[in-house]
Amino acid sequence: MLLHPPIAPWLLRTATGCRVTLLTRDASLDAVYLRTLVDNEESLLPMTSAGEHGAWHSWQADMPWDDGNVATRYAFKVLHGDSQSWLAADGPHPHTPPEALLFRVHRELPPAWVRDQVFYQVFPDRFARAHTPRDRQADTVYGGSRRMPVIQPAWGAPIDPRHAQNTFYGGDIDGVAQQLDHIQHAVGATAVYLNPVFTAGTNHRYDTEDYFNVDPELGGNDALARLAQAMHGRGLKLMLDAVVNHTGTNHPWFNRWGTHPAPGAAQSPASAWRGWYAFDDDGQPVGWKGHASLPVLDFSHPGVRDVVYRGDNAILRHWLRPPYQIDGWRLDVVHMLGEGAGARRNGAHLRGMRQAIKQENAQAFVLGEHFFEATRWLQGDQEDGAMNYYGFAQPVWAWLAGVDVAGHPALLDGAAFDAWLTRARATIPYDNQLAQLNLLGSHDTPRILTRLGGDTALARIALTLLFTYAGAPCIYYGDEVGMAGGADPDCRRCMDWSGHSRNNELLAQVKALSDWRGRRREWREGALMTLAAGADWIVFARYTADAATAIGANRGDAVDIEIPWHRLPLGPLRWVQATGPSAPVQPGSAPTHLPARSAVIWTGDS
Amino acid sequence: MLLHPPIAPWLLRTATGCRVTLLTRDASLDAVYLRTLVDNEESLLPMTSAGEHGAWHSWQADMPWDDGNVATRYAFKVLHGDSQSWLAADGPHPHTPPEALLFRVHRELPPAWVRDQVFYQVFPDRFARAHTPRDRQADTVYGGSRRMPVIQPAWGAPIDPRHAQNTFYGGDIDGVAQQLDHIQHAVGATAVYLNPVFTAGTNHRYDTEDYFNVDPELGGNDALARLAQAMHGRGLKLMLDAVVNHTGTNHPWFNRWGTHPAPGAAQSPASAWRGWYAFDDDGQPVGWKGHASLPVLDFSHPGVRDVVYRGDNAILRHWLRPPYQIDGWRLDVVHMLGEGAGARRNGAHLRGMRQAIKQENAQAFVLGEHFFEATRWLQGDQEDGAMNYYGFAQPVWAWLAGVDVAGHPALLDGAAFDAWLTRARATIPYDNQLAQLNLLGSHDTPRILTRLGGDTALARIALTLLFTYAGAPCIYYGDEVGMAGGADPDCRRCMDWSGHSRNNELLAQVKALSDWRGRRREWREGALMTLAAGADWIVFARYTADAATAIGANRGDAVDIEIPWHRLPLGPLRWVQATGPSAPVQPGSAPTHLPARSAVIWTGDS
Repeated sequence: MLLHPPIAPWLLRTATGCRVTLLTRDASLDAVYLRTLVDNEESLLPMTSAGEHGAWHSWQADMPWDDGNVATRYAFKVLHGDSQSWLAADGPHPHTPPEALLFRVHRELPPAWVRDQVFYQVFPDRFARAHTPRDRQADTVYGGSRRMPVIQPAWGAPIDPRHAQNTFYGGDIDGVAQQLDHIQHAVGATAVYLNPVFTAGTNHRYDTEDYFNVDPELGGNDALARLAQAMHGRGLKLMLDAVVNHTGTNHPWFNRWGTHPAPGAAQSPASAWRGWYAFDDDGQPVGWKGHASLPVLDFSHPGVRDVVYRGDNAILRHWLRPPYQIDGWRLDVVHMLGEGAGARRNGAHLRGMRQAIKQENAQAFVLGEHFFEATRWLQGDQEDGAMNYYGFAQPVWAWLAGVDVAGHPALLDGAAFDAWLTRARATIPYDNQLAQLNLLGSHDTPRILTRLGGDTALARIALTLLFTYAGAPCIYYGDEVGMAGGADPDCRRCMDWSGHSRNNELLAQVKALSDWRGRRREWREGALMTLAAGADWIVFARYTADAATAIGANRGDAVDIEIPWHRLPLGPLRWVQATGPSAPVQPGSAPTHLPARSAVIWTGDS
Repeated sequence: MLLHPPIAPWLLRTATGCRVTLLTRDASLDAVYLRTLVDNEESLLPMTSAGEHGAWHSWQADMPWDDGNVATRYAFKVLHGDSQSWLAADGPHPHTPPEALLFRVHRELPPAWVRDQVFYQVFPDRFARAHTPRDRQADTVYGGSRRMPVIQPAWGAPIDPRHAQNTFYGGDIDGVAQQLDHIQHAVGATAVYLNPVFTAGTNHRYDTEDYFNVDPELGGNDALARLAQAMHGRGLKLMLDAVVNHTGTNHPWFNRWGTHPAPGAAQSPASAWRGWYAFDDDGQPVGWKGHASLPVLDFSHPGVRDVVYRGDNAILRHWLRPPYQIDGWRLDVVHMLGEGAGARRNGAHLRGMRQAIKQENAQAFVLGEHFFEATRWLQGDQEDGAMNYYGFAQPVWAWLAGVDVAGHPALLDGAAFDAWLTRARATIPYDNQLAQLNLLGSHDTPRILTRLGGDTALARIALTLLFTYAGAPCIYYGDEVGMAGGADPDCRRCMDWSGHSRNNELLAQVKALSDWRGRRREWREGALMTLAAGADWIVFARYTADAATAIGANRGDAVDIEIPWHRLPLGPLRWVQATGPSAPVQPGSAPTHLPARSAVIWTGDS
């Protein structure tokens, strides 16, 4: 067995690269090599024996940075008798592993604070209301090809799906500020991700009309400055949603109403902004995924690049500065952004965005929204992390709810669940895995409890996985108290502050898991090892050099299993079952009991 | 079972993309989707039933080109009951396949002629001698840090490894021209790949001194023009070796001797060519892989880009023009080329090279040398094909010789052999797989017969694999007559034209396989399916819509096996065993016999 936990002390950054450690069970190997691909050419660096650690033998080599590539890629090659074994990021291979699966590491680390957070996602119109909203019921908002009336129901009234975009419940930014105690103390969150807040037509505000002003209905710029100040005063982080793939149709670059003399891009081919948007061969504006309400920006135009990221007061720079000093950007549908109507030269613009953001604040978090595999954007030069639908939410939905991202049946057993998680991690540098935003749902998906058929036992398993998996957990507002909600718009119901439907058991679990994450370093930055998996259960561990947590998740009937604790490359640990009745554990002395439909946590300390 | 042969009629190019066909065994599926990632966003296109073909049901959808990416990527998703199945390029998946394994296709096809060739590689100093060489034994050649005497042994005399680079046997280009009958009629080859021919110091000529003149010792430019004319007159193709990652130290850009007034890059920091080469922090020139004799060109300098590919008379353009009109370039160590001392911005320069070459001749072949995985360069915008060490030679060496590219023990069983081949193919568009240059050895490796311990039975298996696998076969001069040779320089022995050691059995097999390739379209452009594999044997098929060839390769004892002929998506075929005593085959009627240590070929026609 070969093992390389891609964290210190087994991966140490040096002045010129990394000191890399391989652990092997067998000491009598014919040769041990670190294989690198510096400048795309294989190099086999002999590894030298670095002593024994319990049942493990340790081998080291110094790996130079690969200046010819963004990430430095490596694997391990071991010779024994007439054959060989390799270790890559997804596990063992009998021959040179595919390049896509090599371990990878890069110089430019994601901000270290990200891994220490518990994020809380707020949909501003639906979270909390500090002010009585202005009566706008005589107004209309523009939603693509037609104007729609403004609907303003009472807080908590059912959502009318016929008015999904034009119903305003009046949540506002001061409302978020008023609920910071809930976020910080009841939930235990340390960072807030706000869905779009800039002036826009609809309630979701993905149709931006003004990137430099917070919507007055949410309280305007002053409210955001107040929120930022209050949060930073509490040590909380604030992340906003950057929607720069497209604008709304009422953005003055696109349509200029009223007394504006110059025509917008949609109004005349002679518009100064015509080249800022993508138009098809018939001269019609291209809408994002066909939505006429969301005309696509064309990044081949220097004006777009300047206003979005390159210019001195570019959008992405502006809000990183006082008085807001936000701590990160969530980049909406960022894989689709590019030149022309689509994603041409996407990478070049992502690199430009990253550079602009980091110039303003090297510790700002660059988070991409990707419903699907985000490997390409997570190699070091583009995003720090992604909304981890592909590598976390989707496999959890499949395993616990038997459903996929398209709503199709997708039942997996524990081995396939583990294989999906493992394969998804394998293509991403470990520091970026730790900066992934893991989630169980969002404003774009059914709520987790509804996905799970209202089954709180399964929800508790899902929450345990969320908080213990590699990456930062993100709670979608209301999930902590068991709010229900189907697909958009039903997943955007008003937060119930009355407490009538509050599930205090779930809230207590979320708070406990948040606190645990604060106390246990291995939850935030430990390596990850799957210890065992059955059809209905999985056991994995997070570990550093001196502590470990093992997590057992069982979606089925109670079962007694053998856990190979000895596979963890650690000295003797005192193991304690930390969920349910606390009890010491004697590794290997007896099978371990996994109660039905539950998650169990064991902590191990030296 | 799901199947998608990525060739016509199952993949048809249309005006806007491709018409894609999926074959399924089961007709009662809940839903069938073609999944694309146009502009990096998932799209699930419902596939419509397109009738039944024998035991198979056919489903079609029209897929648009992905303008946001080089290759258009796709997979298939099928719903049945509470779960789902996917088909990607490597086979089935229980959930969304990793992006690296999606099928891929692109607009820009490799030249179609490549797949129809049998290549023959010639190392000019060692293949054939038309002229008595000039006596240069008083001369020296420069090999990095020291001058070496010119050694000129008799043709066929043993190679002295102490003089690996400075021994000249006097092979020349007119010698190649004189042996075109051997190449064309005895071997059956249709294209020649010549190792470097431009003026250089050593016998291998990877240390170029003049990119615009064929070495006078080889006959100069006139000899090359004569060879090109003679070959084109016979309908043969000619490919040269472009060594533009580095030059020799005697290139006048680097060192100017004699009466040249201006200093070369190595002679003065003030040299006009100083910026053309990579120098380290101490002002020392950087040699390719540390070889001082091969100073690395720095593609960040516009002068280098212009002379190599961008300028009107750039090296890569020059030789594509009359009177040479070569048919393709083999690009030496091209993955290492780039800006600075290494591979920085490698892709940008490869794209520039491709563009320059295709501007001169859209049908020119762009072939990259890669000892390791070449996936990145084979997505459509860089190379047409690669020297297929990683995806063919390495697995064949491991399976038949139990050795890897580094000379380490690497024994694989048939299943692992097949998995390696399959996984290597899966990341490359099928048109590019057909334009791979498959090989069993080269001037950089031990000869195949020597690798196999002189075992001609195993060599015959290797040759059968070479000619029947997807891609164009390349025979290293002399392998067709069973020449022996260990690692460089021993693999560069003089061709034995005396016939004393000629293995006529191997030569006849090579000729028969070449002829077969000409007759059987499926060998050149058919899809590939593994039918069965055991520890010591493998059976795979190449097939078009109306014909198939099955190939059985058995490295071990005789065995009777069940071949699932019905897995091929074809109507009833008349199968004939085409090797050994010709005999009709009744698929499924009885186990099939694979004799010990042999390759068997069955052809099937409708």
